[in-house]
Amino acid sequence: MFGRFLPRETSFFDFFEQHAALTVEGAQEFVSLVSSGTNIDAKVKRIAEIEHETDVITHRCVEALHKTFITPIDRDAIHRLITKMDDIMDFVEAAAERLALYELTVMTGDVRDLAVVLHRAAEVVEAACKGLRNLRDPQSLLKLCIDINRLENEGDAIFRRAVARLFKEERDPIVVIKWKEIYENLESATDRCEDVANIIEGVVLEHA
Amino acid sequence: MFGRFLPRETSFFDFFEQHAALTVEGAQEFVSLVSSGTNIDAKVKRIAEIEHETDVITHRCVEALHKTFITPIDRDAIHRLITKMDDIMDFVEAAAERLALYELTVMTGDVRDLAVVLHRAAEVVEAACKGLRNLRDPQSLLKLCIDINRLENEGDAIFRRAVARLFKEERDPIVVIKWKEIYENLESATDRCEDVANIIEGVVLEHA
Amino acid sequence: MFGRFLPRETSFFDFFEQHAALTVEGAQEFVSLVSSGTNIDAKVKRIAEIEHETDVITHRCVEALHKTFITPIDRDAIHRLITKMDDIMDFVEAAAERLALYELTVMTGDVRDLAVVLHRAAEVVEAACKGLRNLRDPQSLLKLCIDINRLENEGDAIFRRAVARLFKEERDPIVVIKWKEIYENLESATDRCEDVANIIEGVVLEHA
Repeated sequence: MFGRFLPRETSFFDFFEQHAALTVEGAQEFVSLVSSGTNIDAKVKRIAEIEHETDVITHRCVEALHKTFITPIDRDAIHRLITKMDDIMDFVEAAAERLALYELTVMTGDVRDLAVVLHRAAEVVEAACKGLRNLRDPQSLLKLCIDINRLENEGDAIFRRAVARLFKEERDPIVVIKWKEIYENLESATDRCEDVANIIEGVVLEHA
Repeated sequence: MFGRFLPRETSFFDFFEQHAALTVEGAQEFVSLVSSGTNIDAKVKRIAEIEHETDVITHRCVEALHKTFITPIDRDAIHRLITKMDDIMDFVEAAAERLALYELTVMTGDVRDLAVVLHRAAEVVEAACKGLRNLRDPQSLLKLCIDINRLENEGDAIFRRAVARLFKEERDPIVVIKWKEIYENLESATDRCEDVANIIEGVVLEHA
Repeated sequence: MFGRFLPRETSFFDFFEQHAALTVEGAQEFVSLVSSGTNIDAKVKRIAEIEHETDVITHRCVEALHKTFITPIDRDAIHRLITKMDDIMDFVEAAAERLALYELTVMTGDVRDLAVVLHRAAEVVEAACKGLRNLRDPQSLLKLCIDINRLENEGDAIFRRAVARLFKEERDPIVVIKWKEIYENLESATDRCEDVANIIEGVVLEHA
C-alpha cells in the first residue's frame, strides 16, 4: 500500500531505463541516417527531438534527486550516471546536425562503422540499466560493463583508422575538417558509454 | 541590527549582479571590437581584464559558499549558476584572443550578428540576476528566462548560417579554421546564457 | 598504534604524490618523444600506460573519499584537486596519440618548447603536492603556486607564438590542423597545472 505513495525509490531506475531506451533509438536513427544517406533532414530532426526528450528525463531525474532524502544507490552515482548518459545523445545530435549543416550527402564506410559500434554500445548500456534495478546478479551486470568497454575499444580503433585515412586520402582540407568533427563526436559518444559502464561497475562493486 | 553582522544572505546576489554586469560590459566591448575592427589589441586586452575580474568574483562566491551554512537559495544552484555565468566571459575572451592571434582584421557580418545577440542575451541574464534577489515576481523572471532561450535559438540559427556560409564561400581552408573557431566560441557563450536561464528557472519553480 | 588501523588521513596525500610523480614521468617521456622524434610508437605506448596508472590512482582516491568521513583537508578540494591533476595526463596522452596518429615525425621547435614548460610545471606541481601534506610552511607552498602560474603564462606565450607561426608559415592546411590540435592539448595540460595551483593556494589560505 505504502509503495503507491512512495514510488520514489524505483523512479531513478525508471529514469535510467527510459533515458537508455531513447538513446538506443537515437543511435539507431543515426545508423539509418548514415546508411541510406536519404531523408537526412527528417532524420536529423527526429534525432534532435530524441535528444530533447533525453534532456527532459535528465532534468526530471536531477530534480527528483534534489527532493529525495534516501536514494536506492549512492546519490552521487545517480547524478554522475544520468549526466554521462545524457552526454551520449548530445554527441549523437551534434554529429547529426553537422552532417546536415555541412551538407555531407555521400557517407563514408567509417562513419557507418562508428555508428554501428555506438548503437551496439547503447544497447548494452540499456541492458546494464535494466540490470541495475536488481542487483541480484552482479556477475551478469559486470559482464555487460566489460562488453561496453570492449565496444569502446573497438570504436576507438575505428576512429583512429578513420582519422588516419581522412588525413591520408582526402585532398580537400575543408572535407577533412567536416568529417573529422563528425568522427570525433561519435567517438566521444562511445566514450561516454564507457564512462557509464565504469559508474555502473562502481555501483555493483559497492553493493556486492 | 542583526543584518549588519550577517550580510551573507544577500552577498550571493551581489556576486551574481556584479558578475552579470561585467559580462554585459565584456560582451559590449566585443561588439565594439567586431563592429569597428579598430584598436583591436586594446579592446582584446580590456576583455581579458574583464574576464579576470569575473574570475575573481566567481572565486569569492565559491569561497563564500564554502563558509556559509544557510544559503538563500539552493547551495548547488548557486554553485552551478556562478560556474555557468563564468563560462560566458571565458568564451568571449577566447573569441577575442583568437581574433587578435589569428590577425583577423576584416570582420564578417556574421561575427557582428553573433556578437549582438550575445550582448542582448547577457543583458537579459543581468536583468534575471537582479530579479533573483527578490522572488516576489516569478512571472517576470520566468519571462526573462524565456527571452534568453529565444535569443539562444536566434544565436544558434545565425551560427548555423555563418558556418554554412563559411564552408560554401570561403576558399582558403586556413581562414575557415580561424572563423569557425571564433563562431563556435560565440555560440558556446550564448549557449551558457541559456544554461544560466535554465538554472534560474529551476530556482524560481522551486520557490514558487 | 591506532595510526596503523586508520591510515586514511594520510592516504589522500599519498594519492596526490603518486599521481604527481607519474605525471612528471609522463611529461618527461613526452619531452623525450618530441626531442628525438625516434621510437615514437614505444614512447606513445608508455605515455598511454602512465595515463592509465594515473586514472587508477584517481579512481582509488575518489573511492577513498566516498568512504572517509573526516578528511584532512576540505572534501571538495580533494575531489577538485585529483580531478584537475588527472586532466593533465589526459591532455599529454591526447597530444602523444595525435603525434603518432597523424604520422608527424618531423618535430617543431615550438612543440619542444611547450613540452619543456609543461614538464617544469609538472615538477612544481609535484613539489606542491609534497608540501600539501605538511602545511607548516605555507609561504614556500604559496611560492610554488606562483611559480606554476608563471610557467603557465610562459606556456601561454609560447602557444600563441606557435599558433601564429603555424598560420603564417605553414602552407598546408592539413598540417595546420594537425599541429594546432597538438599545441592546444599541451596548452590545456599546462592550464590544468595552473588550476591545480589555484586549488592548492585555496587550501593553504583556508588553513593559514
